[in-house]
Amino acid sequence: MAVYTEVTDDDLLDFVARYDVGTLVSYKGIAEGIENSNYLVQTDRAAFILTLYERRVNAADLPYFIGLMDHLAAQGFTCPRPIRARDGAVLASLCGRPAAMVSFLTGMWPKRILPRHCGAIGATAATLHRDARDFPMRRANDLSLAGWQRLHDDTRARAHEVQPGLAEALEAELAHLARHWPSALPEGVIHADLFPDNVFFLGETLSGVIDFYFACNDFLAYELAICLNAWCFEPDASFNVTKARLLLAGYAKVRPLEPAEIAALPLLARGAAIRFLLTRLYDWINHPEGALVRRKDPLEYLHRLRFHQSVADVAAYGLG
Amino acid sequence: MAVYTEVTDDDLLDFVARYDVGTLVSYKGIAEGIENSNYLVQTDRAAFILTLYERRVNAADLPYFIGLMDHLAAQGFTCPRPIRARDGAVLASLCGRPAAMVSFLTGMWPKRILPRHCGAIGATAATLHRDARDFPMRRANDLSLAGWQRLHDDTRARAHEVQPGLAEALEAELAHLARHWPSALPEGVIHADLFPDNVFFLGETLSGVIDFYFACNDFLAYELAICLNAWCFEPDASFNVTKARLLLAGYAKVRPLEPAEIAALPLLARGAAIRFLLTRLYDWINHPEGALVRRKDPLEYLHRLRFHQSVADVAAYGLG
Repeated sequence: MAVYTEVTDDDLLDFVARYDVGTLVSYKGIAEGIENSNYLVQTDRAAFILTLYERRVNAADLPYFIGLMDHLAAQGFTCPRPIRARDGAVLASLCGRPAAMVSFLTGMWPKRILPRHCGAIGATAATLHRDARDFPMRRANDLSLAGWQRLHDDTRARAHEVQPGLAEALEAELAHLARHWPSALPEGVIHADLFPDNVFFLGETLSGVIDFYFACNDFLAYELAICLNAWCFEPDASFNVTKARLLLAGYAKVRPLEPAEIAALPLLARGAAIRFLLTRLYDWINHPEGALVRRKDPLEYLHRLRFHQSVADVAAYGLG
Repeated sequence: MAVYTEVTDDDLLDFVARYDVGTLVSYKGIAEGIENSNYLVQTDRAAFILTLYERRVNAADLPYFIGLMDHLAAQGFTCPRPIRARDGAVLASLCGRPAAMVSFLTGMWPKRILPRHCGAIGATAATLHRDARDFPMRRANDLSLAGWQRLHDDTRARAHEVQPGLAEALEAELAHLARHWPSALPEGVIHADLFPDNVFFLGETLSGVIDFYFACNDFLAYELAICLNAWCFEPDASFNVTKARLLLAGYAKVRPLEPAEIAALPLLARGAAIRFLLTRLYDWINHPEGALVRRKDPLEYLHRLRFHQSVADVAAYGLG
């Protein structure tokens, strides 16, 4: 929730002149985005989002992220469309940082998740998987098994400060996941961060998906495992099976799930829970003094992990 | 540079429905404003700025600030125009805070001040003074002599941490100002915070003035004294007399200055310098741990104060 790099009017006038987007009439730093600096840029023709990529984003990954948005937008998927500069480039530089300008999407992310949101996000995840099928670039998921182990190694010594015994619980879970993680499920491009704050709605309609900066190639069903964690738990921590059923049914209407994908869901959901548990734990422990970003509670995901561990079969997710 | 109060989509949908402004299609928290939470709100008809007033603004003063914007906008002055709810009110409540929605102004505030900006801000200050002439409300300037003394009392014990001897220098200056402060100069409504980040330009044209939350009734020439401090010093701390001459000439073209006002300028400029020195010093000393706002250097204004103390007469400001 911050702007890390202050862009001056002179900087931005020069920058916008490199694009065929009209004349700059306004810009405001947006208090959103934990990783990057974002500006809402208004010209006499349209509105755009300008992003300056800060240190936490690996610049080598940017062609993948921006190429993916470009590819998806060309397929008609509702995501920000990268704007080409007059020289044809979609990736530029501003204030010493990599920068890109994308089209502005209307819509609001839903703070209170309703069942209908879950059906829509399921269908949209499947549409994304379908529309990205021919995207030619590849990026490994650096927040899968090996990445979780790294985060665990980096947080092990201080995990007990968050909860006694947490390191040991994570150790056991990671061992279980390493032994049982599937090796052969349908793969493709996944968004990998389809949380409510990355999904816009206009009334009943899902109007767009943003923030492709964790996108990667992985099991398609792992996306659903993330969504089960992100959309189907209530504020009181209980799991809402109606929302899960709608989510999975929405997905299956666009892309039917294979039996192996369905069978793997409980394990993939455990993986997704530990992924967000570990990144939150890492951020909790390494929270800098005076940071501009508020910490999120890692234990929320320990409760979700416990739920998925307790699941006997996919009936718990409303299937079968 | 923050959003202190998070407004949810449901909250905002309910709020916007109280106004005849069209259908909400987007809103973004803006990383601007030190005192309040600001959102850029987009409907299918137009863009607006929604402000939630946080604790540092005295709610009893809001009818003055918002009434003044309403009055000025009705005179054709380019400032945000408060939007009336269907019940006629310009002041509402949102998330337990006083809130108001105003029209969106295009333009960018200039980071690098050019001489032409100074002529424009002079003329605009005079236009504001003229257009506010019939505004019926009154608000004393709580950051004049008595307010400075209070800030000095509150910072005296720790001022030496910023610079040894600072408290003593402030003590002497405040005594001088108290003895010599004018008692009879033309009075009226002043903006009282006409800094570059509150003034928008579109190309060569001054397109609007924002942030009326220090506006008050005081000597009109004190506004110019603030502007001399805010617009006429270079990044290397030197005073730019060309900018000052253009500023004062721009003002005088719309409202000629009386001889007593001109004669008082050096003293008023000392007052304006100590006003910003003291509020910055207060904020420096009382900077909360982990605050979302960056501190500004109080000593910048000690240098400006020294300049005004050294001024023999108004020729130093390009007059006479």
